[in-house]
Amino acid sequence: MKLNIALLAGDGIGPEVIDQAVKVSNAVAKKFNHEINWTPALTGAAAIDAVGEPYPDETHQVCASADAVLFGAIGHPRFDNDPSAKVRPEQGLLKMRQKLGLFANVRPTFTFPSLIDKSPLKRERIEGTDLIILRELTGGVYFGERGRKDDGNTAFDTMTYTRAEIQRLAKKGFEMAMGRSKRLCCVDKANVLESSRLWRETVQAMEKDYPEVEVSYEFVDAVAMRLVQWPSDYDVIITENLFGDILTDEASVISGSMGLMPSASVGETAKLYEPIHGSYPQAAGKDIANPLATILSAAMLFEDFNLNDEAEAIRAIVNKSLAEGIVTEDLAENGKAYKTSEVGDWLAANI
Amino acid sequence: MKLNIALLAGDGIGPEVIDQAVKVSNAVAKKFNHEINWTPALTGAAAIDAVGEPYPDETHQVCASADAVLFGAIGHPRFDNDPSAKVRPEQGLLKMRQKLGLFANVRPTFTFPSLIDKSPLKRERIEGTDLIILRELTGGVYFGERGRKDDGNTAFDTMTYTRAEIQRLAKKGFEMAMGRSKRLCCVDKANVLESSRLWRETVQAMEKDYPEVEVSYEFVDAVAMRLVQWPSDYDVIITENLFGDILTDEASVISGSMGLMPSASVGETAKLYEPIHGSYPQAAGKDIANPLATILSAAMLFEDFNLNDEAEAIRAIVNKSLAEGIVTEDLAENGKAYKTSEVGDWLAANI
Ligand SMILES: CC(C)[C@H](C(=O)O)[C@@H](O)C(=O)O
Ligand SMILES: CC(C)[C@H](C(=O)O)[C@@H](O)C(=O)O
Repeated sequence: MKLNIALLAGDGIGPEVIDQAVKVSNAVAKKFNHEINWTPALTGAAAIDAVGEPYPDETHQVCASADAVLFGAIGHPRFDNDPSAKVRPEQGLLKMRQKLGLFANVRPTFTFPSLIDKSPLKRERIEGTDLIILRELTGGVYFGERGRKDDGNTAFDTMTYTRAEIQRLAKKGFEMAMGRSKRLCCVDKANVLESSRLWRETVQAMEKDYPEVEVSYEFVDAVAMRLVQWPSDYDVIITENLFGDILTDEASVISGSMGLMPSASVGETAKLYEPIHGSYPQAAGKDIANPLATILSAAMLFEDFNLNDEAEAIRAIVNKSLAEGIVTEDLAENGKAYKTSEVGDWLAANI
Repeated sequence: MKLNIALLAGDGIGPEVIDQAVKVSNAVAKKFNHEINWTPALTGAAAIDAVGEPYPDETHQVCASADAVLFGAIGHPRFDNDPSAKVRPEQGLLKMRQKLGLFANVRPTFTFPSLIDKSPLKRERIEGTDLIILRELTGGVYFGERGRKDDGNTAFDTMTYTRAEIQRLAKKGFEMAMGRSKRLCCVDKANVLESSRLWRETVQAMEKDYPEVEVSYEFVDAVAMRLVQWPSDYDVIITENLFGDILTDEASVISGSMGLMPSASVGETAKLYEPIHGSYPQAAGKDIANPLATILSAAMLFEDFNLNDEAEAIRAIVNKSLAEGIVTEDLAENGKAYKTSEVGDWLAANI
């Protein structure tokens, strides 16, 4: 197979972790006889510096014409204390999601047996956790009308959803549930929000098309509790954009392996893969960042092209590196800490 | 002192736990020479059944003319699977908050040494946690315009805040921080929402009036993570209504003592106290529910009238009951389980 992949390294540790994912992906491609063409493009603070825009048109062209996008991380401390700055890296992220139509963010949370004791939760609470949150990514209050009134003294944001937006996200959720334990949980705030009531009624109407899937409906506040209490109760969760933002981040820390969690964002055709961790500017350029989340994101990429053996090869070698202690300093405990690039080299060589 | 307290028992276990709080409050009043007048009034499903309205005008009159309200819990399973039912118990709650002007919800999260091992978090993560979330309760997306368009196929909710609404909540937060560790964290989503940007700029402008308070600004998704990772990092958190709904519930489970957590909701003059747990219909009428959260809510009530010794007396006797194992079945472990009413009797007798 021939794959054209847009490479958006971004800011902070982005370039370093992306490099390792490229190494490992190339090793997999070689082993399984595929050809990958990588096309780098600018994004985030790096793009603001170069062309004054966090998601330049040129970058969009590269992404739109690629088969998939591999993304590092964006964000830079110089923007952090000024959320109203005119141009911000995050705007690039939102623009990218919208222009590429990446309406579904897929965020798995699972545990690695060797890392389970790093979880803030007790072992018996977290063991067996393997859930996916499917977050709607191009609608809701992120993209509704917003502004000021009364000389700037009143601010408003609008949370909007259409039935069609909910259906396409829910369809993915039902399909995902069919391929897993056939349990789907729709998370909303239908006791308060009209948009949540539309979510609930839309998903309820789709139940008949998936008679094998057992669907539950829970309020977002209850789920924020239960994710900490009994995370293994959940399998596939679907939810709107803002609730998904909060719940996916909450879920990411319970496994104890946040630095290893991958993600995918997909649309009708576009596909983007990225680690869930941020750009960790403090670690940038030091060759110490953990590249595994980005490498496992590349595994999700292969899987979405039905290259399951390739994805499995990546996961297997990642597990082996963990078992053998070929890990960066965040996981090194009392053993040797390897450099970011050394971990990438080892994985690529041993795949 | 003479106190007129409106008594809203509500649904499920509400009446049972309220009874114990009344017993204990009366014992405290006797000991410290106060007089309490209790005026019961209908709310929740109980009120819907009686008069077709979850927060009847008559109840509002009772609450508005009382010095404070002691509230049990509302909610009944027959409303649960029908979020669009015309009359719902939750509507009563929202109407009550709005009509009484209860703009600040005060939700402490703390640990009891004897219960710390019930936390889903590891002991070293939760030890020392003692935080307060101050949630704005009468604004935001809960009370903005909402509705449908396009033949019901588009739904919208509006999140609105005025500078004045933010100021009165933030003022309470600054004052609370002054009386504690002088650390205040403002939680928003200012990288996306205009209303959050108004929150941030309003709080920033108030910093100069409280030069001793160290203020931090964090995004809601980051806080959803850090509350699970390092809850003891936080002291006073202020946030808008919807974020507060999610974060207070998340915070409530980390202590391991959710069944014991009290809360207060206050306005310019009105004051309401309630346990954070729900109406647990499964346990209703069985005399097994844990009354401590309601009793500790009564302690918050005394404190807000500057009756600090009275509040301390309640807290001390609650701690003693825990130490001596005079507890309901949820806390009984291997010891004897006492009835709800027995716990209340013991506390009232030993105060
Ligand atoms: C940076 C921010 C706009 C973004 C979001 O809220 O979607 C981030 O938190 C995420 O989840 O990818
Ligand atoms: C019942 C519901 C409307 C309410 C809310 O969302 O405010 C509840 O969750 C709470 O936190 O008191």
